[in-house]
Amino acid sequence: MTGPLQVACVQLAPVAGADDDNAARSVAAVASAVAGGAGLVVLPELVTSGYPFESVREARSSALPPDAPIFAEWARAAGDAVVVGGFAERGGSGKVYNSAVLVDRTGVRTVYRKTHLWDSEHRFFTPGTAPPPVIDTAAGRIGVLICYDMEFPEMTRGLAARGAEVLAVPVNWPLVDRPVGERAPEVVIAMAAARVNRLAIACCDRSGDDRGQVWTEGTTIIGADGWVLAETPYARGDRGLPIWGSEPDGLEVVRARLDPARSRDKTISAHNDLLGDRRPDVYAALMGDAQ
Amino acid sequence: MTGPLQVACVQLAPVAGADDDNAARSVAAVASAVAGGAGLVVLPELVTSGYPFESVREARSSALPPDAPIFAEWARAAGDAVVVGGFAERGGSGKVYNSAVLVDRTGVRTVYRKTHLWDSEHRFFTPGTAPPPVIDTAAGRIGVLICYDMEFPEMTRGLAARGAEVLAVPVNWPLVDRPVGERAPEVVIAMAAARVNRLAIACCDRSGDDRGQVWTEGTTIIGADGWVLAETPYARGDRGLPIWGSEPDGLEVVRARLDPARSRDKTISAHNDLLGDRRPDVYAALMGDAQ
Repeated sequence: MTGPLQVACVQLAPVAGADDDNAARSVAAVASAVAGGAGLVVLPELVTSGYPFESVREARSSALPPDAPIFAEWARAAGDAVVVGGFAERGGSGKVYNSAVLVDRTGVRTVYRKTHLWDSEHRFFTPGTAPPPVIDTAAGRIGVLICYDMEFPEMTRGLAARGAEVLAVPVNWPLVDRPVGERAPEVVIAMAAARVNRLAIACCDRSGDDRGQVWTEGTTIIGADGWVLAETPYARGDRGLPIWGSEPDGLEVVRARLDPARSRDKTISAHNDLLGDRRPDVYAALMGDAQ
Repeated sequence: MTGPLQVACVQLAPVAGADDDNAARSVAAVASAVAGGAGLVVLPELVTSGYPFESVREARSSALPPDAPIFAEWARAAGDAVVVGGFAERGGSGKVYNSAVLVDRTGVRTVYRKTHLWDSEHRFFTPGTAPPPVIDTAAGRIGVLICYDMEFPEMTRGLAARGAEVLAVPVNWPLVDRPVGERAPEVVIAMAAARVNRLAIACCDRSGDDRGQVWTEGTTIIGADGWVLAETPYARGDRGLPIWGSEPDGLEVVRARLDPARSRDKTISAHNDLLGDRRPDVYAALMGDAQ
């Protein structure tokens, strides 16, 4: 591992309907990641609630406000590190959002509401309407997306244009078909987004068979040149691999070192700059009314 | 191979300064690809001229107007097929463009001028200002990009929004560093673009050591789900592999069958549509002035 920042993604297995256990596990995960030297800790999407809600009522009862005590616990466990993780957010008028919080020792720095909802999430969540945040932290300039958001190149491009150096992306990737030997499609998409924007991307997936849903368990940390720095075997190989070696405390942690400052220079040849080469006039003409 | 359309990319080795040989070789390539059953033939970028010009004067002297006889020869050789290939285009006022032509039995259907110029291309070429085309053909609705253009997600997204089913992408990929066992970065980018847009993409690279420039030789055909249907070993493995087996006539051809109509349905779950899920309002707010 090289670079001044250690990024650690803790691939937890939250359980729907067991919120207290989920909360305790998430705090332990932050503490363990930080004890191992992490400066940026990424937790999965909906880590406090689990994913497969059975009813709108259950989603509402699992939802937390951004000032819930659990985030203060994350902040205490974080020490000098920065923590990004997903949760079901209780908004106004009974609305629930699929959100992510960024926390450091000062507390909650930002809350982001997932813009692009996946499949049955439409039943439980209201989509966000605000652009994803870019926050200056002790771990660099961090952008936040949630899962399916990342599959929209407009989002990753926009965060790069805003100066994000590292994207922290809580995800829950349902396992989908892929050819033998290929990485998960979401990882291929993240690698490309990193490469075309010179942006590091840390995707923290979840594990566990929560109410029968099987997950990719594809946690992957990608450097600003688009190459994978660390990944679970599941992210790359077949789902039939032996169980991945976990840490002594039973947590699955993917760690990599990188230099957030590497993302600042978009120069890729004597005459090329990844953002400077953009031709918004041409894109506007191409997209037309669909823009 | 499955699907009604056979796509064939002929990975030629044009030589700068040998325009007549390049032209003859390109016509033979089209004939060979069509004889093998291709309905869409893709040739490399700048296939009539070679790439590494030594002077502006040489670039100008290699440049052809869109009504040059060579394209009528491609049209004759095409029969019922569609051909897309790159050439140096002679424009007005001594300008030269890095262009691609789409030809069928009726002749030249469209000419596209590369929007994003790579490195020293700025010395020889004027960038295009018109959006890339989408053309209805006997081989489906074909979009055209050239090499570095494809690394701008705005371009692939825009072509998908315009209804393109297959992108024909003439490229000249200079060999760049990559980790052992990884595909060329341009291929990863193309796979992601195919996946997030449900769009087939055929990238035809070149071969040969033209004036010392070493190429990736990474020709790859990608299906609308983002998976590679056919590729050269160089596209995937290390550059040190044994020479790739060529066809009996000495041409290196990558062929795959696909169904262009597969690209029309952007539905990816009961509640998701790759284009319908876009949130232009959020992207506009995110990009701000950089849009």
